[in-house]
Amino acid sequence: MKASQFLISTLKEAPADAEVVSHQLMTRAGMIKRLSAGVYTYMPMGLRVIRKVEAIVREEMNRAGAVECSMPVVQPAELWRETGRFQTMGPELLRIQDRHERDFVVQPTSEEAVTDIARQDFRSYKQLPKNLYQIQTKFRDERRPRFGLMRGREFVMKDAYSFDRDEAGAKASYQIMARAYRAIFDRFGLSYRAVAADSGAIGGDLSEEFQVIASTGEDAIVYSTGSGYAANMEKAESAAPAAPRPGAGQALTKTPTPGKSTCADVAELLSIPLKSTVKSLVLATDTLDDQGEVGKTQVWLLLLRGDHDMNEIKVGKLPGLNESFRFATVPEIIEHFGTKPGYLGPIQLKKPVKVVADREVAVMADWVCGANEEDFHLTGVNWGRDLPEPDLVADIRNVVAGDPSPDGQGELAIQRGIEVGHIFFLGTKYSKAMNATFLDEDGKPKHFQMGCYGIGVTRLPAAAIEQNHDERGIIWPDAIAPFTLVICPVGMDRSEAVKASAESLYQDLVAAGVDVILDDRGERPGAMFADWELIGVPHRVTIGDRGLKEGQVEYQHRRDAAPTKVAAADITAFVKGRLGA
Amino acid sequence: MKASQFLISTLKEAPADAEVVSHQLMTRAGMIKRLSAGVYTYMPMGLRVIRKVEAIVREEMNRAGAVECSMPVVQPAELWRETGRFQTMGPELLRIQDRHERDFVVQPTSEEAVTDIARQDFRSYKQLPKNLYQIQTKFRDERRPRFGLMRGREFVMKDAYSFDRDEAGAKASYQIMARAYRAIFDRFGLSYRAVAADSGAIGGDLSEEFQVIASTGEDAIVYSTGSGYAANMEKAESAAPAAPRPGAGQALTKTPTPGKSTCADVAELLSIPLKSTVKSLVLATDTLDDQGEVGKTQVWLLLLRGDHDMNEIKVGKLPGLNESFRFATVPEIIEHFGTKPGYLGPIQLKKPVKVVADREVAVMADWVCGANEEDFHLTGVNWGRDLPEPDLVADIRNVVAGDPSPDGQGELAIQRGIEVGHIFFLGTKYSKAMNATFLDEDGKPKHFQMGCYGIGVTRLPAAAIEQNHDERGIIWPDAIAPFTLVICPVGMDRSEAVKASAESLYQDLVAAGVDVILDDRGERPGAMFADWELIGVPHRVTIGDRGLKEGQVEYQHRRDAAPTKVAAADITAFVKGRLGA
Repeated sequence: MKASQFLISTLKEAPADAEVVSHQLMTRAGMIKRLSAGVYTYMPMGLRVIRKVEAIVREEMNRAGAVECSMPVVQPAELWRETGRFQTMGPELLRIQDRHERDFVVQPTSEEAVTDIARQDFRSYKQLPKNLYQIQTKFRDERRPRFGLMRGREFVMKDAYSFDRDEAGAKASYQIMARAYRAIFDRFGLSYRAVAADSGAIGGDLSEEFQVIASTGEDAIVYSTGSGYAANMEKAESAAPAAPRPGAGQALTKTPTPGKSTCADVAELLSIPLKSTVKSLVLATDTLDDQGEVGKTQVWLLLLRGDHDMNEIKVGKLPGLNESFRFATVPEIIEHFGTKPGYLGPIQLKKPVKVVADREVAVMADWVCGANEEDFHLTGVNWGRDLPEPDLVADIRNVVAGDPSPDGQGELAIQRGIEVGHIFFLGTKYSKAMNATFLDEDGKPKHFQMGCYGIGVTRLPAAAIEQNHDERGIIWPDAIAPFTLVICPVGMDRSEAVKASAESLYQDLVAAGVDVILDDRGERPGAMFADWELIGVPHRVTIGDRGLKEGQVEYQHRRDAAPTKVAAADITAFVKGRLGA
Repeated sequence: MKASQFLISTLKEAPADAEVVSHQLMTRAGMIKRLSAGVYTYMPMGLRVIRKVEAIVREEMNRAGAVECSMPVVQPAELWRETGRFQTMGPELLRIQDRHERDFVVQPTSEEAVTDIARQDFRSYKQLPKNLYQIQTKFRDERRPRFGLMRGREFVMKDAYSFDRDEAGAKASYQIMARAYRAIFDRFGLSYRAVAADSGAIGGDLSEEFQVIASTGEDAIVYSTGSGYAANMEKAESAAPAAPRPGAGQALTKTPTPGKSTCADVAELLSIPLKSTVKSLVLATDTLDDQGEVGKTQVWLLLLRGDHDMNEIKVGKLPGLNESFRFATVPEIIEHFGTKPGYLGPIQLKKPVKVVADREVAVMADWVCGANEEDFHLTGVNWGRDLPEPDLVADIRNVVAGDPSPDGQGELAIQRGIEVGHIFFLGTKYSKAMNATFLDEDGKPKHFQMGCYGIGVTRLPAAAIEQNHDERGIIWPDAIAPFTLVICPVGMDRSEAVKASAESLYQDLVAAGVDVILDDRGERPGAMFADWELIGVPHRVTIGDRGLKEGQVEYQHRRDAAPTKVAAADITAFVKGRLGA
């Protein structure tokens, strides 16, 4: 490609609404252009990156035996009513009425459409397993679209769906995708982690997120310094406390703590470590009667160490709390504890509640908690002596850095990540809702066992930039760079030698299959270099009149601090060596 | 590709709603699957065809200097309000409101979005010309979607838009596209015609349609048997009548024609040729006053030969009728002619009308028309003697087969076509509406001169099938076949020799870059052959045990009546020769 035949449109300033560096740099580099909130045109420079991402994804999906199709962007609501998602999905689902006032949606994913294909086409177990995928435009009407392609409304996703005759088959299909995803993310040339994720109501351990590591990532990801264990914060566990509960060493004492309603304030006031305090969280669950009205409400007191945070996913899996809990109201709290939040604790309740202690709290002695009286806390609290053992002991907290890894090997560390892929065992959730069956070997209809597998094709370039940039611009990995190499001739219009040398190198590299761009725009060197450093093309060859007179040109990788002089006669071979071309 | 790893899903019966052969065959061959009226999933077999169409289009567009981008599917209504199309486009434009009740549309084309890019990015004449294109999902909410991919609601279009500093530049850009389109359609391997089309209000001759020839096509296209002249029916002209008007030979006579209200009926009654009759069409134009109310109405009488039809586009270009005419109402007709339609003519009017005679009518003598009296016609009518010369003589009719070509070379012939491409000079229609300007060399802002260029990517395969099929199924041209060649091993499960031979040929052809599929499903020969004939793969090699014992395999092109025996040892070379691989 020659720059004069391409569209290069760089900006000095990022738009005011660009909060993150990938949004700023993609806009400044002319890769994306905002059409509406969360809706972007992929400009030629950006589209080249997206196409390279697509090509890698497509190759590895095909290699893994998945078959590409393309489902409609505009889908009939009737399918989405079958699974109930038309009703339950909320305003994220973009709804349309056509000219005949029939309801449609713009696809956010395609479980319904693909399950509809399966129930028509996959009639016999002999046709299974099958994995259908598409790389197609999606829309999610985010309440607050932001960060450019990171949290856009319209985006491109690769979504794959596997269909198997039984759970063992579905799990094998899942593992094939897990391997394919590692192959895909290895090829992108990014630092990433596959982390275990929560699989929600379906249960089991078959859910992994693929996270590109970046300090600006929205997700906290947890990994062990001593093993391969990795999970997202929702899912991550630490090893249970190893040491038994110490004996009581202090007397139970009511201590005035006026105005100190947080564990941190109390610890500071009493000059004790924060981890000696216990925080009280009050939840409630409602039992519905036959008419669907709230029949009975159960109040729960959750006890966590002062330096720990509740993990809602873990709490939602406890018996009695299964995904339907809510925070208690202030009147409910006053009714049970006799005081308002800030001074709550498990002792001297007005009405009984169910007490759930985090595993760490259950092995504490001489701890501090609220006295259920405004402006007072209790110190020297001890299980058994001052209050009964908790109704339930469980892991209900987020892990923190330094926790022991759950496999006993090493400590947990935490880093930030950007989710760009997610693989998920679905079981029969969709096939049952849509009555999608095949005839099994015994002649009986059975529901498909399904899995779904997504990659955020347009989010990936943004994540790559969050990980790879400097103050001058983007630094693309070779695999997904818009161009692999740029030839920058200095003074091309004044020097026939420069022009001829640049053209010759260009032709040689094109012939060698290198994705090269020759900047023949005639820009000044400073502006030209700034453009390409902003755009982030990883390899650059600069050809100037002075160098050529000494038989030399310059090579510089985008990460190099300074250029390397290379004999002009050797530059093609040198570049091919650097690129492995 | 091996069939066992692909998705082959053929049907014996076409769906009841499939009226045309391409819809029937694409559905039966498992290439598309209906999700909703006019909304289809492109199944793996169909997607391969679409991807090949896309690749050819992309290569030739890039070669012609166009640059690919991708504009959003969901576009904000505010842009569409700038050009007025949000208000004027009617229910074909699919409208959406997002969660904040802001209006959006699903793009039917992207003139607005691309002009918005141009007015932001193309600031100087130095950046021009530019041509931006995309291959992207579109939606038009057709009142009556039908014919599968021929008239769907969701479809894929390649749409390109050129931006130039002046009209000469825009016309040069148009010609570059005209050549690129010929290169694209040549590569598809279809019989097609580029035909002149009407360019509407913009004027000029810069509008061409690319029509795939098919007897089932919706469009009538006109071409000369003696030259390269071709146009669609709206646009096509014939040479003006060469012979002068003959002198009058008959007396004007009022003849009873009871109940004969059409030219055909009258010609039959009087035993004269239909082309000796003249039909009267009554139009009206309304002049609006300052308040926008109808001020004055002008009634027009159009005279056409009895065997000719009016061409509304041509009529709409006449002075005084410019695109705003309507058919007159019955009261208006009675007011001017004294009788109701069926017996109208230009003689003995009650109130004056403007008379427009088609060029052919103007040179007639002794003709027949209505007498402006129910159940009576006039015969022996002659211009000058019986009525004044017409107010206007013009070409206002559709051409018919046998008309002389307008370039004087050959006769016109008519065939049916399917429009799959359209190129169009737009001028400043969109750039003025959206105030899209660049700074010209003189430092002044000027409006872009634009062109737009479309190809119906998903309609093209349907058109190819309408042109290329037989009673057994589709016959793909090599360039866009889902697979170029299929290897059909007979009795692969029983014969190691067949299996080894098929596998060996498969590997050889893959290595030679042939897009080959090996049917390893183990189907019976009859079912296997029927599948591939339905799917329309153009080249087939059949390998059977009996043939192999004689050292032979069979090659058959999809159009061949019978297979050709080829020495097994030579089959790779034979196939490569046939494919030019």
